[in-house]
Amino acid sequence: MHSFEQLADLFKKRFETKHFPATPQSLYESCDYFLSIGGKRVRPVMCLMGNELFDEINPDAWYVATAIELFHNFTLMHDDIMDAAPLRRGMQTVHTKFGNNTALLGGDVMLVVAYDYLNKINNTYLHKVIALFNKTAREVCEGQQLDMDYEKQQSISLDDYIRMIELKTSVLLAASLQLGAILGGASEGNRQHIYEFGRNLGIAFQIQDDYLDAFGDPQKFGKDVGGDIRQNKKTFLLIHVLEAANSAQKKTLLQLMEENPADKVQRVLEIFKACNVDEWAWQLKQQYMDKAMQHLDAVAVVSSRKKSLMELANFLVQREH
Amino acid sequence: MHSFEQLADLFKKRFETKHFPATPQSLYESCDYFLSIGGKRVRPVMCLMGNELFDEINPDAWYVATAIELFHNFTLMHDDIMDAAPLRRGMQTVHTKFGNNTALLGGDVMLVVAYDYLNKINNTYLHKVIALFNKTAREVCEGQQLDMDYEKQQSISLDDYIRMIELKTSVLLAASLQLGAILGGASEGNRQHIYEFGRNLGIAFQIQDDYLDAFGDPQKFGKDVGGDIRQNKKTFLLIHVLEAANSAQKKTLLQLMEENPADKVQRVLEIFKACNVDEWAWQLKQQYMDKAMQHLDAVAVVSSRKKSLMELANFLVQREH
Repeated sequence: MHSFEQLADLFKKRFETKHFPATPQSLYESCDYFLSIGGKRVRPVMCLMGNELFDEINPDAWYVATAIELFHNFTLMHDDIMDAAPLRRGMQTVHTKFGNNTALLGGDVMLVVAYDYLNKINNTYLHKVIALFNKTAREVCEGQQLDMDYEKQQSISLDDYIRMIELKTSVLLAASLQLGAILGGASEGNRQHIYEFGRNLGIAFQIQDDYLDAFGDPQKFGKDVGGDIRQNKKTFLLIHVLEAANSAQKKTLLQLMEENPADKVQRVLEIFKACNVDEWAWQLKQQYMDKAMQHLDAVAVVSSRKKSLMELANFLVQREH
Repeated sequence: MHSFEQLADLFKKRFETKHFPATPQSLYESCDYFLSIGGKRVRPVMCLMGNELFDEINPDAWYVATAIELFHNFTLMHDDIMDAAPLRRGMQTVHTKFGNNTALLGGDVMLVVAYDYLNKINNTYLHKVIALFNKTAREVCEGQQLDMDYEKQQSISLDDYIRMIELKTSVLLAASLQLGAILGGASEGNRQHIYEFGRNLGIAFQIQDDYLDAFGDPQKFGKDVGGDIRQNKKTFLLIHVLEAANSAQKKTLLQLMEENPADKVQRVLEIFKACNVDEWAWQLKQQYMDKAMQHLDAVAVVSSRKKSLMELANFLVQREH
């Protein structure tokens, strides 16, 4: 059994290889560049962990993990175009550096190369692996579309927002774990539990992310607090406060969002606190985290095998505040 | 054995089904809309013909044919964004009707659904089918990138241009035939011959397309003659004339391309004719057509099974002018 860090190190070493042909350079340099920006490689490691939960690592798990990471990078390349984002991890995005057309085509070809890695695995689980990969890929596209739709709408229900987050973020974490479990020969029941662990963990993680943007310690959080508030970004907190606030608070809030005064962040936070949004968010996160852990508990393998997944969950989502 | 028309009718009936979920409508209506624009469905029919060349139609060939047509439509949706094309077959393109972001995401999800159809086939040929499909998909992306690169360059060699056409257009025709052949249990040698038949036929078809734009009978051709010349589009004819013209002709040509006078088409055509570009193009097309037919001849099945492929070749590429 390996820890998250050990698997991350092993995966990063293997991933540092040429994934694309040399020519046409004008196409593939965009892909090489984007991968060179790096990342935590959480999803492929979750695939390896989902695999090791049930057995020694299956050599095919490295291929599937690579396919997952390439798929994830394909979605980021295309999302950056759609969001017109100039930077990612402090580096120029592909469309900023190479133009929209090359970023579009580079993303397309990266998705195809992801399928090339999937196609390297043994016949036994090929159909099952591709079926789950495809379902997840469709859902991630649906999540991105809903995200764009919701940004244009004045109000969304919390349920709709959670469903969007689930599609855009959680299902890929869940599928990464389940793809590993499939390759580990897990039973249908165990596969479902590990998927639900990942799905709930993903939602808890997103709630925490939204929480920290508003209430995080700037020193620990490592980025500017209040960025979401400044941009009127729809978050768990904003959606809840629009449901929970009284009419005077709601009116002030909508005015602040429209007028963007200099003290906007501070004043929105005051309304958040008056409505107990911080407590509410922390408890909602705890609920999803508890559900995640119940599903991990229910996986029918000895608990010693679950140690690194528990560590991962507690690393991604702090249980104390 | 079926004729091209029979297979086209059968395929079109089967293809008229829901390929996408109902929601989110904002995503999938773009896919439904694009497919409703229609098309000749040449590629899926070539898959069925490549299959029937060797055996009764394998039920899996319908899935692969569907995947090929969805893949082709995915490339068109994304190409239309890159080319900023307002219309396709007289209808609004997806990005014009629904916006660039939805056209991008709609294309992505259409590619994923293509892989869903591939994944429906039997285990026996799954690896082989996906491997050829992926290789072809990569090549089509490479062809589109080269096409965009070449549009920006002042001059390209004929060899480079042919390679671009091969990637952008021919390989998908060739692969459609070969995918059918794989499902028909064709030998490695026969698979290669049918691929080469399609590859050479595709190049011959493109040469003819370029030829007709300049020298076609407007009544028979059905579209405005000289469109490529007006747009300075790089074609077989333009690339050859820039190599074959004397320095005076070349100078006039470049001037016409820069200044776009009202009589541009007529004057460019005069230079084309003075350089015998029409004869040259017709012969080049004939050479590729001959190569295609040699490969079809070499396929080791009784010649009666090749009848509909011969008809298709002669329908796509006229041998007389």
